[in-house]
Amino acid sequence: MADFMTETDERSAGVPRPGTAGEPREKAQDSAAGAPDGQEAVAQLERTRALVDPELRTAVESLPGAMRRVGLYHFGWQHADGTPATGNAGKAIRPALVLAAAAALGGPAARTAAVRAAVAVELVHNFTLLHDDVMDRDTTRRHRPTAWTVFGDADAILAGDAVQALALRLLAEDPHPAAVPAAARLAACVVELCEGQHVDTDMERRAPDSVTLDEVLAMAEAKTGALLGCACAVGGLYAGASAEEVAALDGFGRQAGLAFQLIDDVIGIWGDPRHTGKPAGADLAARKKSLPVVAALTSGTPAAAELAALYGEPYLEGGAQDGEIARTALAVERAGGRDWAQAEAADRMARAMQELARAVPDPEAAGGLLALAEFVTRRTA
Amino acid sequence: MADFMTETDERSAGVPRPGTAGEPREKAQDSAAGAPDGQEAVAQLERTRALVDPELRTAVESLPGAMRRVGLYHFGWQHADGTPATGNAGKAIRPALVLAAAAALGGPAARTAAVRAAVAVELVHNFTLLHDDVMDRDTTRRHRPTAWTVFGDADAILAGDAVQALALRLLAEDPHPAAVPAAARLAACVVELCEGQHVDTDMERRAPDSVTLDEVLAMAEAKTGALLGCACAVGGLYAGASAEEVAALDGFGRQAGLAFQLIDDVIGIWGDPRHTGKPAGADLAARKKSLPVVAALTSGTPAAAELAALYGEPYLEGGAQDGEIARTALAVERAGGRDWAQAEAADRMARAMQELARAVPDPEAAGGLLALAEFVTRRTA
Repeated sequence: MADFMTETDERSAGVPRPGTAGEPREKAQDSAAGAPDGQEAVAQLERTRALVDPELRTAVESLPGAMRRVGLYHFGWQHADGTPATGNAGKAIRPALVLAAAAALGGPAARTAAVRAAVAVELVHNFTLLHDDVMDRDTTRRHRPTAWTVFGDADAILAGDAVQALALRLLAEDPHPAAVPAAARLAACVVELCEGQHVDTDMERRAPDSVTLDEVLAMAEAKTGALLGCACAVGGLYAGASAEEVAALDGFGRQAGLAFQLIDDVIGIWGDPRHTGKPAGADLAARKKSLPVVAALTSGTPAAAELAALYGEPYLEGGAQDGEIARTALAVERAGGRDWAQAEAADRMARAMQELARAVPDPEAAGGLLALAEFVTRRTA
Repeated sequence: MADFMTETDERSAGVPRPGTAGEPREKAQDSAAGAPDGQEAVAQLERTRALVDPELRTAVESLPGAMRRVGLYHFGWQHADGTPATGNAGKAIRPALVLAAAAALGGPAARTAAVRAAVAVELVHNFTLLHDDVMDRDTTRRHRPTAWTVFGDADAILAGDAVQALALRLLAEDPHPAAVPAAARLAACVVELCEGQHVDTDMERRAPDSVTLDEVLAMAEAKTGALLGCACAVGGLYAGASAEEVAALDGFGRQAGLAFQLIDDVIGIWGDPRHTGKPAGADLAARKKSLPVVAALTSGTPAAAELAALYGEPYLEGGAQDGEIARTALAVERAGGRDWAQAEAADRMARAMQELARAVPDPEAAGGLLALAEFVTRRTA
């Protein structure tokens, strides 16, 4: 599932910021007026790491033997040989959303109470990363070899299993009255994440013309939006939020997650390789059925037919196909895939803002969540 | 992890029944005097299936898309093509232990209250089976192709993940006051199961002379004993048992689980192929470091050296090594591996009985748990 760490560090693209955010967004922007773009979110993420990391690390260190070793490696606290590493456990977007949602509706006391739940959400995220890397045969994660390349498939799978269990154990041992509904919600989210990952791998195997835009949007919501929504909802539970507020927080996180995925997919095609750290058009060369590509394929335009023909054949590295990636990107663009994705991202951010206004009517209080949503969807850094 | 279904159906061997069971065991035997060997346990298992299956199936059917399909296949309710199957979800030993422990200390009301927890324990067991089959490349489970052979590794891993989450979600949604401590205990047990599976696969890769008997006993306790102990402990929690009673129930299940594993390993070497359904000495041909083998290897006898030499080379199917399996089995026996395993099994059953007497001093009330422990360790059917 998507990891914001690399993308936000390394990718950049000119993506329009949603212009229809309405009252809460503008007010909240005012409230962060002293901070330049993204600085408020960066400060939040740093505070989150400081609050969450000690308990996260204690939890991972409570694992036995090999589970502990793989866990400490995956989170960046140990090298493969077990010696200490400086640590690079990602940007902590999800725990930051938990804490920001708790603070938005319950103030600093709720934020403090929700730290353990934030740790649980981060553990769930990392369990999915451990397993997805095995399934997708991804070899690099956070600039380091993935756990399965170092410890083998079996230990990476087992460590993921143990990290999922650890997350739900933390909540079961948390005496806070929100811990039990939070655990139920997080467990339901895991099921959704699993189905999202299934649909993703399944779609990649299918013929390009058999995938619908609704399918790929539903997949992105399950795979990326669900856990962002769950993080916000869990934070709300710890603030004693009503069922309506919790549902709106979930919707906020889901829509922001979809906006993120749309923008990430645009950058995957048109992003500057100097910033993305990936060769230009790597997603196209891999014939990935990303959101702009499926929008283009299903557009009914002449360019869609050209794109389908290109996607029908595997990309071969080397001279014979020089210029093919550029032609493929152009076909996606001419079929409207780029414009659609950018408009859809803006629309999803607008929906996220509406949900946020429903959940947290006070723009001042909503500022933290808003800054995080803008941080993950803004790519002009 | 060990599945009692096939073994108890298909294996048989003359294994001594523990003779030092003490007061509770004898009394409980009296109380089941009207029932021939194992009949009481069989009746309990049938009652358990009738109580647990509807909720288990509802839970699995609540999964989305592919997770549901893989789950229904794994539990034997659907064929690979999605058509209904008659169902063969195993013997339900673990849920039976949950219900028997609840009934032993809390009567019929506690038994009824614990049904959802019994479902959760059975889901955890099956999540580990789904994943272990992937890691061990096992192709058959309950007389059918394993899920990964039908749906691929990725979907089997994802379905296992979803089934773990489902188990903990059921407990998070159970309003019973025991549900939260039961969830914490079950999650902690998952971590232990994962480490046990890691140690097992790791030991199989190591040189025969590098494995100690303590290591293989600890592995068997983590891999087989832990979930049996957890099942009993969870049942106790639903009966409002004290911390001491819960610990004793856990110890009862763990020791009975170790006795089971010892006997299963003996049958894996000396069992009658007509009953085991496996070729004679399959465990030896696979160079499995089972409990009797490690006991033999570490015995310091001349036969131990002979066995180490045999185990140092891979077994090759075919004529050149005819008689090698018989020689290997004889070396294990001459090195004392068989006698040790049988004595150790009897000792573990005696310890299980002591724990049971501590947890449930009333022999009448302990009868159900006793019958289940004898059922899984008796192999003269």
